[in-house]
Amino acid sequence: MKKTELYRELGINLDLALEAHETIRGERGGEIPGVSLEEESFDTAHVRTVTVLDQRGASIIGKPPGKYITIESDVLRINNKALHEQLSKTLSEKLKETLPFKSEEDSVLIVGLGNWNATPDALGPKVVEKTMATRHLYGRVPQELTNGLRSVSAIAPGVLGITGIETAEIIKGVVEKTQPSLVIAIDALAAGSVERIGSTIQIADTGINPGSGVGNKRAGLNVETLGVPVIAIGVPTVVHAGIIAHDIIESFVEKMKNKPPLTQLTKEMSPPLLRIIIDEVLQPYSNSLMVTPKEIDDLIENTSKVIAMALTESLHPAMPEEVANYLH
Amino acid sequence: MKKTELYRELGINLDLALEAHETIRGERGGEIPGVSLEEESFDTAHVRTVTVLDQRGASIIGKPPGKYITIESDVLRINNKALHEQLSKTLSEKLKETLPFKSEEDSVLIVGLGNWNATPDALGPKVVEKTMATRHLYGRVPQELTNGLRSVSAIAPGVLGITGIETAEIIKGVVEKTQPSLVIAIDALAAGSVERIGSTIQIADTGINPGSGVGNKRAGLNVETLGVPVIAIGVPTVVHAGIIAHDIIESFVEKMKNKPPLTQLTKEMSPPLLRIIIDEVLQPYSNSLMVTPKEIDDLIENTSKVIAMALTESLHPAMPEEVANYLH
Amino acid sequence: MKKTELYRELGINLDLALEAHETIRGERGGEIPGVSLEEESFDTAHVRTVTVLDQRGASIIGKPPGKYITIESDVLRINNKALHEQLSKTLSEKLKETLPFKSEEDSVLIVGLGNWNATPDALGPKVVEKTMATRHLYGRVPQELTNGLRSVSAIAPGVLGITGIETAEIIKGVVEKTQPSLVIAIDALAAGSVERIGSTIQIADTGINPGSGVGNKRAGLNVETLGVPVIAIGVPTVVHAGIIAHDIIESFVEKMKNKPPLTQLTKEMSPPLLRIIIDEVLQPYSNSLMVTPKEIDDLIENTSKVIAMALTESLHPAMPEEVANYLH
Amino acid sequence: MKKTELYRELGINLDLALEAHETIRGERGGEIPGVSLEEESFDTAHVRTVTVLDQRGASIIGKPPGKYITIESDVLRINNKALHEQLSKTLSEKLKETLPFKSEEDSVLIVGLGNWNATPDALGPKVVEKTMATRHLYGRVPQELTNGLRSVSAIAPGVLGITGIETAEIIKGVVEKTQPSLVIAIDALAAGSVERIGSTIQIADTGINPGSGVGNKRAGLNVETLGVPVIAIGVPTVVHAGIIAHDIIESFVEKMKNKPPLTQLTKEMSPPLLRIIIDEVLQPYSNSLMVTPKEIDDLIENTSKVIAMALTESLHPAMPEEVANYLH
Repeated sequence: MKKTELYRELGINLDLALEAHETIRGERGGEIPGVSLEEESFDTAHVRTVTVLDQRGASIIGKPPGKYITIESDVLRINNKALHEQLSKTLSEKLKETLPFKSEEDSVLIVGLGNWNATPDALGPKVVEKTMATRHLYGRVPQELTNGLRSVSAIAPGVLGITGIETAEIIKGVVEKTQPSLVIAIDALAAGSVERIGSTIQIADTGINPGSGVGNKRAGLNVETLGVPVIAIGVPTVVHAGIIAHDIIESFVEKMKNKPPLTQLTKEMSPPLLRIIIDEVLQPYSNSLMVTPKEIDDLIENTSKVIAMALTESLHPAMPEEVANYLH
Repeated sequence: MKKTELYRELGINLDLALEAHETIRGERGGEIPGVSLEEESFDTAHVRTVTVLDQRGASIIGKPPGKYITIESDVLRINNKALHEQLSKTLSEKLKETLPFKSEEDSVLIVGLGNWNATPDALGPKVVEKTMATRHLYGRVPQELTNGLRSVSAIAPGVLGITGIETAEIIKGVVEKTQPSLVIAIDALAAGSVERIGSTIQIADTGINPGSGVGNKRAGLNVETLGVPVIAIGVPTVVHAGIIAHDIIESFVEKMKNKPPLTQLTKEMSPPLLRIIIDEVLQPYSNSLMVTPKEIDDLIENTSKVIAMALTESLHPAMPEEVANYLH
Repeated sequence: MKKTELYRELGINLDLALEAHETIRGERGGEIPGVSLEEESFDTAHVRTVTVLDQRGASIIGKPPGKYITIESDVLRINNKALHEQLSKTLSEKLKETLPFKSEEDSVLIVGLGNWNATPDALGPKVVEKTMATRHLYGRVPQELTNGLRSVSAIAPGVLGITGIETAEIIKGVVEKTQPSLVIAIDALAAGSVERIGSTIQIADTGINPGSGVGNKRAGLNVETLGVPVIAIGVPTVVHAGIIAHDIIESFVEKMKNKPPLTQLTKEMSPPLLRIIIDEVLQPYSNSLMVTPKEIDDLIENTSKVIAMALTESLHPAMPEEVANYLH
Repeated sequence: MKKTELYRELGINLDLALEAHETIRGERGGEIPGVSLEEESFDTAHVRTVTVLDQRGASIIGKPPGKYITIESDVLRINNKALHEQLSKTLSEKLKETLPFKSEEDSVLIVGLGNWNATPDALGPKVVEKTMATRHLYGRVPQELTNGLRSVSAIAPGVLGITGIETAEIIKGVVEKTQPSLVIAIDALAAGSVERIGSTIQIADTGINPGSGVGNKRAGLNVETLGVPVIAIGVPTVVHAGIIAHDIIESFVEKMKNKPPLTQLTKEMSPPLLRIIIDEVLQPYSNSLMVTPKEIDDLIENTSKVIAMALTESLHPAMPEEVANYLH
């Protein structure tokens, strides 16, 4: 059974381009035309960048053309400030490569997607809370204080179930009124394997595209829908239970495969069969069940700090040290 | 010293029309032309409605022409569900008199102003959290489920210090995108006396006008700025320390006044003198100091429940009982 | 593979006596000596009571002798106040049958186990927050106000990782100082299947025994350790990922079993093999991974309300209606 | 009117020994026998230590014999990490002078007094949340990891209104069970003037004595009640409205005093008159009204961080840097 078929059956979107790339390359048994992969190593992180070069690559990998930078690190799982600051510097460096600013006057709107009240989905609102908005300072404080600062605004618009409004509609309205040069959207993602949780940060210069994210944000946030470039920073915080189910059976069958004639089991596994199994085992929650580690609260807290630090460092052209210290 | 002068000196806006009315009528020694006052009694509440009839009244009382319904009750100070439900019914009844709906298709956007993280300012976001949004249900659930329900959306946009964006800009953007027929804005207010805290709910069919509210929301939310009617529901949760200071000195002088020649003290009291006294006593917080009772957490919780219940009851044309039960 | 062996391998304790009973009876293929099962039906709930009659039953089922009342209902999954009140009445009724009070002077200490900051483990602290403590009123308010009220105190002691102290030690200390006649401990449980989440409340008159609970509370809270009777109210909020893994493979094999000679697969499944599969699929979180539905926040909120209402109703001998209304 | 008489009338206890010292010395017009005062200056702080030397001093100043170290700094009012770390070092240094440890085996119980849900009273619980408990590590992790660490436990017992139990009873029970060598209690204090809020931290080696604290904790936490030494760390977060009222009238009268024969006003001011004025102006909240700045949330957050850092630094004999980094 191909994993890509399984995901289709389960209605799962692989939010990480790196995972999509690995899965599809595995199934194809070779490189994907129109998609490139680069690697870099940093002190506390390993960075792999998937670039979707053209429409051919895009249609194979299921992601629009653009850069998908994946920062992998295990320091988010531990409460260590010094290592978090190192990781934050790497994130800041990679962010800077992506920022399309033309001048210091270019402004940014940070959008924290997700739901305050559901821990694994609260990453976006937490980053907004930790971000220093500066847009309102212009014209209200002496100019010396805003020298070297970029105009930054930040909003956590809430989720459809609470507001009754598509997040994209709210953000479109805010973008039209405030005219930022760039939107940076922060989102919790669903991963294709448990080891991605608390180990991965993805920067995508294509924004957020329909169907991604933990809470299945419906409409996209990207240059097409908003009219300004959108950079998405995503962090996997959950895995769909259906993926876990598949991996467990696959692993089981793998263990059995040396016992002929059991090998034919592999052929029996199919998305519809798995759907039946999942419905049976996971009802009444088969579609909403998420697997997340007990430590999710700490992971979200650490990750939101790292991202907020990196945003401050990368966005402001020349933040004086005394200002840098004033972050929450 | 006239209180109105004091308020001007301290930069204080009397958010409650009833307080403005009482203060100005007291200072004028008689009725205010262009302003009327009506009273009604309910089981758990006393209702007084100040109507600003014309521009003359508006310029005297400092509020635009419209209806200001003040519901006074002492049941918010106690944790009693049955009494809260009674008060909620009165609030719902008075709200209904104000709602400008022309048909069941007219939709509503509820806006919870204020700051989640500061208890006395969290009333608006708390009401949003307790409100049942229905706008997203249309086209997603079977029509029977939305029969009798009005389209309601709800947003808590955050405050300027966190977002860097004027609340009014955010709401304008959302209104343009979602086209509600009516906006209902919920806000915590600053009162002119301590006894107003936890005892008063004001409904104003003129919306929110510049300079009002605990957090001094700058731009207004009203039919002029948003293009649709705005009803404001406001609840006093704090008193400026400056008002407390004035009242204490006034009370002190009153106690002294039978001891001539001390009576002349009254003349010595002036807004600039009071400003000096306040700066001296309340520094370094003279402008941000708020007086609020220890019980403020319970008051906010109770009041947000009462308002959320009243919104549900008054907004939906024919909510079936089984739906009414599904409120948070 | 026997499920009981699997649980032993995974270090999982079945917190619900009803699940232990079902599993073991299934494996034995018949009734368990020394254990009885009774059933009752209520409007919104089905109640099954497992009674462990003697040591023989206890050693088979792995629970000390006593009553384990399981209330099953699907109303916790929906936000419906009227149905929650009905379920609360059933819970109250069953609780009353368990309360060992000899007089109205007997007092109660309610203990909310678990961690405020981790949603699925926050049930206990949430019930404490919603409970009306009365113990401090005696001698401080006029006697009329405490007539018909039982002396109730309530504490949420925190978890080992934050306090550095075993919960049982804290509670022992508090019990010695405050001398309650009874302890009622509220706890989030780990269930053996997903459908138990948000559908089941267990009352156990044997208290809490070592190793149970979501956070694996080590030492027990029972008449042996505390010197007073302990009633435990437990609600499943998570399932160990290991159990999900087992059930998925079992379901898969079941689907295959009509294809001989695949039937022998069943024999291949063993706890050590499953351990290997789980470690492979769920690393690096294999021991901490919990499966919980997205709606867990609402489930915890609804359940804590139902339990707090039932405690108030069942504990106080003759609460006047006006007092009942004063609950949070 | 003597301030000391006013405080008695209003039932106010001056929690800061430095304020009591200043007030009484002012009223006596000279040094207080049996009480000494020392001053020191640090980079970001000014430290004044009031030592109550004997019973004579104690009866005059209303505090038991012991050391009361007051650290004054204005860095808590700004969000500046570097300055907070400096202040934390000063606090740590002064704490170390107070710690009565005899060996590295001596253990500590940190008690966070106050109420989670009321911002100005939440300081204690916030410090507990940010503290690294280590007591449970002994015997559970390899010894190398606990080398250089002291055994620290931490509890936030809640407040009387929620638990129904005197905090002192809970702590007595926990102390008897866990046998710490020292208790450090963290508490929010009521100050005698607004400028103390967010500017002052007091260390008292006499523990907490009856009647002090924002929430008026009744029974004391000290070596007499607990049997082990108690160090109290207190931070003023509110001022009683009654004190504000007094200061305002005093300031007013002061401004008037050059206008004879108004000078006699001073004589008219008396505690009972002030009581009447306060009741009139502040009803219905005259006893519960607290004055606190709007920024209280940030102040509490900053202060709890500074205290948690200082506790970690001062308590552990030789914390390796890699461990220091693991703090929340």
